[in-house]
Amino acid sequence: MIPDYAARRGALRSLLVENEIDALLVTDLVNIRYLTGFTGSNAVLLVHCWDTRNGEDRTVICTDGRYRTQVAEQVPDLRAEIARASARRIVELAGEWQLGRVGFESHVVTVDQHRGFEDQSTGLELVPTPGLVEQLRLVKDPYEVEQLRAACAAGDAGLAALLASGALRPGRTERQVARDLEWAMFEAGAQAIAFTTIVAAGANSAVPHHRPTDAVLRRGDFVKLDFGAVVGGYHSDMTRTFVLGAASDWQREVYALVRAAQRAGREALKPGASVVSVDGAARAVIEAAGHGALFVHGLGHGVGLRIHEAPGLAKTGTGTLLSGVAVTVEPGVYFPGRGGVRIEDTLVVREGGPELLTRTSKDLTVVE
Amino acid sequence: MIPDYAARRGALRSLLVENEIDALLVTDLVNIRYLTGFTGSNAVLLVHCWDTRNGEDRTVICTDGRYRTQVAEQVPDLRAEIARASARRIVELAGEWQLGRVGFESHVVTVDQHRGFEDQSTGLELVPTPGLVEQLRLVKDPYEVEQLRAACAAGDAGLAALLASGALRPGRTERQVARDLEWAMFEAGAQAIAFTTIVAAGANSAVPHHRPTDAVLRRGDFVKLDFGAVVGGYHSDMTRTFVLGAASDWQREVYALVRAAQRAGREALKPGASVVSVDGAARAVIEAAGHGALFVHGLGHGVGLRIHEAPGLAKTGTGTLLSGVAVTVEPGVYFPGRGGVRIEDTLVVREGGPELLTRTSKDLTVVE
Repeated sequence: MIPDYAARRGALRSLLVENEIDALLVTDLVNIRYLTGFTGSNAVLLVHCWDTRNGEDRTVICTDGRYRTQVAEQVPDLRAEIARASARRIVELAGEWQLGRVGFESHVVTVDQHRGFEDQSTGLELVPTPGLVEQLRLVKDPYEVEQLRAACAAGDAGLAALLASGALRPGRTERQVARDLEWAMFEAGAQAIAFTTIVAAGANSAVPHHRPTDAVLRRGDFVKLDFGAVVGGYHSDMTRTFVLGAASDWQREVYALVRAAQRAGREALKPGASVVSVDGAARAVIEAAGHGALFVHGLGHGVGLRIHEAPGLAKTGTGTLLSGVAVTVEPGVYFPGRGGVRIEDTLVVREGGPELLTRTSKDLTVVE
Repeated sequence: MIPDYAARRGALRSLLVENEIDALLVTDLVNIRYLTGFTGSNAVLLVHCWDTRNGEDRTVICTDGRYRTQVAEQVPDLRAEIARASARRIVELAGEWQLGRVGFESHVVTVDQHRGFEDQSTGLELVPTPGLVEQLRLVKDPYEVEQLRAACAAGDAGLAALLASGALRPGRTERQVARDLEWAMFEAGAQAIAFTTIVAAGANSAVPHHRPTDAVLRRGDFVKLDFGAVVGGYHSDMTRTFVLGAASDWQREVYALVRAAQRAGREALKPGASVVSVDGAARAVIEAAGHGALFVHGLGHGVGLRIHEAPGLAKTGTGTLLSGVAVTVEPGVYFPGRGGVRIEDTLVVREGGPELLTRTSKDLTVVE
């Protein structure tokens, strides 16, 4: 399966027509990758809405000399310009071509860049148009879901290999376990690591976004692993919390609570459900147990070419879910100084119930 | 050795006085780390220039609930606010405190964020003040140089271990070698990988920023390795180009040329030298050999808490070097479809000659 970049640009053109924009200046590199396949570290893309006019399609990608070969290989179907100051060059061209109303990504473009564009944009009207490409990226196409499945499978397989190797045991450090898990994901097909792997043992498990230290794992600890793999640019995201040696009653209780909340969150994932209601479904379970104040973050987030993208599943979120949206569901309960549990899956919203991409068991696992 | 965050904020306050700014809204996370030690993924810092007034020091860091514990641990010396919309909350506070002229990082703040600040900033004058913290970060303090030395040592040791293990040999893939090298850097003390490791074999070595593929290394190939380690948040950056099995005359010639250019670049690193003259010193060597058009990028870049930071050593750069600035020197000559060579070191500019942090030999190495 290969991505249909031309179709994606076609969908974007429909949005441009809706917004009465003649062309969009795309400066976000992830959006450029989504629309063209280009993966270099510098580029600007101008998507021209030529089908609303009689003229030529002026769509063009601009990058610098380092990427001359790469842009020709990765984007054979678009005109490419080579220039050191790519954005400047593209705005200049748009001016020469008298493109009219040119949208820019006002959620990405800095105040200084914008001033630079204004200086270059003789005869153009620059219009802030935040989030247009992100709107398209919200619903994953079949190619994207395939990549997400592969990324999640690499995460599942990496964790299984870690557990099978006995590397998660008292006496080892958080850093060692994190490294072993990353290595195991690579062996399982990860092309990159999705974000700094979290391994948090004992009291550290109460720090939601703890970074691995030389802290040593001990019998009786909660050990929280939050990690992901990248395949084809797409990120997986999964958290599992284990107990080492033997679980106390308190640990069993907290675990069962978070697991129930996580199930409630997953079951609320339906096309048409508001993101607030999904967050609320999981949060209600934790609040009913009297621990609402210990669930200190949102329920989840969209995932795709970025590890965090729209939609945010949170109390303060907006909007409703659509079929094909990929999200995480990750409630947590954290007792400061004592320990915490988070359980997280990556799923795709579907009619008839979400597709679970992270398949590792969520039963309480006491690692002997 | 520990970083003196209070001294760094003190130096920043002097810049604020120079710029007639009463407080600076710092939104760049790397700048926040530099000024406070906070390493979470969401925060906003307000540095108040209180010593110019009679009032209280209003300096405050704001982050969200996930980082309540972490901010208390990492930034014990500053007032911390917890709020979901950190930037909004800080601008609101600055308004309540009537702080007057508040600078913001216009090179980082997006057009949309800026509009949000304006909506919140009753009674404040928001002033674009790009690059103030970066100006401080340009010259590395002794703590920072120590971290850079450690990061570069991890890169050197990782490469040495890779070569000693025999993992760089015909029949292996670029991806396998990249993974082995990253693993070896971790074993040698890297806390993270500085950027996606480049392993480029044969014709791929002519692509300056090639990403590792499943291409198989063959006898007679150039193999270019560009990689780095992170220690304490600081990045190392080094490139070495090897030949597998036996080097042809053409390969020896290209290598000798790039090596001579790299030496000329290093020797031009002096306090007071313009960045253009440093780039020019290396470029002149390549141009004299008739290959100027094949050196398609700048000579180097600053390196520190980011892998790419000021100053840029390039034809189009501006400014002069100071003692304590850390840079890479990395000329390359690339023959499309055939192969290329890049040699790169990380160094610190010093009176009396630069301190070389990446110590791996630059002799042409034919890996048997």
